[in-house]
Amino acid sequence: MPSLPISFLSDFGLRDEFVGAVHGVIERIAPGTRVIDITHGITRGDVRAGALALLRAVQYLPDGVVLAVVDPGVGTARRAIAASTRHGFFVGPDNGLLAPAVAMVGGADRFVALEAAAFRLPAAGSTFDGRDLFAPAAAVLASGEASLGDLGPEIDPGGVMPLLLPLVEHGDGWVSGEVWWIDGYGNAQTNVSPADLELAGIRPGTAVMLRVGRVEHEVAWTAGYGEGHAPIVHCDSHGLMAIAIPRGRADEGLGLTEGLSVGFRACADEAGSA
Amino acid sequence: MPSLPISFLSDFGLRDEFVGAVHGVIERIAPGTRVIDITHGITRGDVRAGALALLRAVQYLPDGVVLAVVDPGVGTARRAIAASTRHGFFVGPDNGLLAPAVAMVGGADRFVALEAAAFRLPAAGSTFDGRDLFAPAAAVLASGEASLGDLGPEIDPGGVMPLLLPLVEHGDGWVSGEVWWIDGYGNAQTNVSPADLELAGIRPGTAVMLRVGRVEHEVAWTAGYGEGHAPIVHCDSHGLMAIAIPRGRADEGLGLTEGLSVGFRACADEAGSA
Amino acid sequence: MPSLPISFLSDFGLRDEFVGAVHGVIERIAPGTRVIDITHGITRGDVRAGALALLRAVQYLPDGVVLAVVDPGVGTARRAIAASTRHGFFVGPDNGLLAPAVAMVGGADRFVALEAAAFRLPAAGSTFDGRDLFAPAAAVLASGEASLGDLGPEIDPGGVMPLLLPLVEHGDGWVSGEVWWIDGYGNAQTNVSPADLELAGIRPGTAVMLRVGRVEHEVAWTAGYGEGHAPIVHCDSHGLMAIAIPRGRADEGLGLTEGLSVGFRACADEAGSA
Repeated sequence: MPSLPISFLSDFGLRDEFVGAVHGVIERIAPGTRVIDITHGITRGDVRAGALALLRAVQYLPDGVVLAVVDPGVGTARRAIAASTRHGFFVGPDNGLLAPAVAMVGGADRFVALEAAAFRLPAAGSTFDGRDLFAPAAAVLASGEASLGDLGPEIDPGGVMPLLLPLVEHGDGWVSGEVWWIDGYGNAQTNVSPADLELAGIRPGTAVMLRVGRVEHEVAWTAGYGEGHAPIVHCDSHGLMAIAIPRGRADEGLGLTEGLSVGFRACADEAGSA
Repeated sequence: MPSLPISFLSDFGLRDEFVGAVHGVIERIAPGTRVIDITHGITRGDVRAGALALLRAVQYLPDGVVLAVVDPGVGTARRAIAASTRHGFFVGPDNGLLAPAVAMVGGADRFVALEAAAFRLPAAGSTFDGRDLFAPAAAVLASGEASLGDLGPEIDPGGVMPLLLPLVEHGDGWVSGEVWWIDGYGNAQTNVSPADLELAGIRPGTAVMLRVGRVEHEVAWTAGYGEGHAPIVHCDSHGLMAIAIPRGRADEGLGLTEGLSVGFRACADEAGSA
Repeated sequence: MPSLPISFLSDFGLRDEFVGAVHGVIERIAPGTRVIDITHGITRGDVRAGALALLRAVQYLPDGVVLAVVDPGVGTARRAIAASTRHGFFVGPDNGLLAPAVAMVGGADRFVALEAAAFRLPAAGSTFDGRDLFAPAAAVLASGEASLGDLGPEIDPGGVMPLLLPLVEHGDGWVSGEVWWIDGYGNAQTNVSPADLELAGIRPGTAVMLRVGRVEHEVAWTAGYGEGHAPIVHCDSHGLMAIAIPRGRADEGLGLTEGLSVGFRACADEAGSA
């Protein structure tokens, strides 16, 4: 029976041979396993950015094994975990990285701590768990050589580290949230949904007062990028409100950065006509 | 029957999970399909650079499906297309990106517009056609689940967007063109061929007056990089005249940029001896 | 019989389509061959950095074919070679790039020069041997279409270019070496082993005087990164002494660069208590 595919995300970057070593370990343990690189460009050690990228990707990944390593705590006492879900297995550090994606696919049936010595590669040091601990665990789950329970003791789901994500704040005719992703095109995804805007009395296709930090801009809430070049807000391909300058960079044009507070309210004109 | 391989080029970059999501979609629709990443490092939105990279690569790609997405018009009314050729299928936006590569393999038998709703992934927004429209189309063509005609109505080849490429200009003893690619080593490929130089009376192995913008340099027309460190011109691995500084960077050394005008004429000495 | 996997390292970068063209050539010649990208982020033309990355990776790669191309001498008279070892085949330029990895796996049984014209792809120029010479050689070795001897004449192992690596210097109570890799996290691997430190009377778990260039720092020799944020030295995941600032960048914090001289001696306090 062929192995399950492994989908692999990390902050390893592509300059060093880290990603290649992980691929090599998987191929040695489970020859022929397909490995899909989700991205290895997560900002070094940015667990939240890694968790959000995995959250955005997970419904597009094949059922199989998700291997995610953004692990600033490697070489400390933080736990390594694996989970089984309806979407397949998840393997990574217990630092919140897996939590939103696991929740998105309906939660985990079971978590284990990766403590079984049998599957860890022997290595001089303890600082490359991606290669020595997580890759072998993903490979044996993919090939069926081991079951989840073989990898270590079951742990209490309540003790697994969650990821704290910012909440949207609702007020009288406004909603505020934050930028939680600037993509490589300069588009800014927020944590605010179209439904949040509608709750605030803002309707698709109207003009919106967009607050970026302390500055307000009047922008159109459009259905896509359209033909213009002025800043817009729209429901992006993940179902969240995003800020874009079509054929330009919204991050540079509007001074947007990850984590910045943003707000939305109806334009006076639009609100008046409601 | 195994799927055809898919060769995939984009301007998505590797920082975000865009490329991974496309790979995931293909694996979900057509498990086991081989995907070759041509490059995802095309300058964002630079359709010409993407078209030229695809043109350089196409004869080295396996017969199968070419999936190319450099698509500054995503979210507008631009069409999405697929073509069948002797080399296999091509899928991408109708903005000129595919045109030079399709021409290189002998032209298309047939074009369709990707309008069949059955193959589009449902998504909140309309701004990630690489994932929602182009990847599924490439996957079902690769697996044979759909024929070209299943993807949408046939369109007139004459209405497909061409790519306008700069022409070489010939004069009395000279030829001029432009830089159309600076590679990562700093080498500058021009749109001028060795035959163009020979038409201008310039012979391989001689000294050449190379004009870069308004400045002329005397350089050797060599067969390869050779042992020296001075600037040279040579026929590169794609059959075009390129400007290089062996073991150095010609872009920095000579002030070369993509799109810059360059000219070639024989040296007075060389011309005199002809 | 399926092809052997090919593990591929280069300095091609990922901006251009070079890596994609090599993958394409392999797929055309030996369909279905698995290709593992070790890294393509080696600094352009830095043969030593490529050789060290390959050395670090090689024991984690599947048995098969190693294809390595960091080749500042392409287009000159430098030789192209292939070797057979107990770990499989190695293919690359004869410039020292393969030497440390070949030695690591027990040395080569046999070397040949890649001179057989039958396997070289025809191309206008001579400057992309990765695509035209090395990739076809790797592909036919992987598929079994050719044996090593089919690729060219056997050559004297004594004539194959070695890689000169810096030696560690031992003194009375000290040992010195150099930084030979700064990874993407800012960690600095040295060429000094834990055994070298122990020979100098330095014991794990003690304080160490670390010389960086001409400046000395007192640091702890720890077993992993631990919970602190101060600079440490530790045995890294390849068994060499490395300098790190946990959850920080040692290169920036301590002014470390590849090639810089570093030294280790016991702290007076620690030495006194020995």
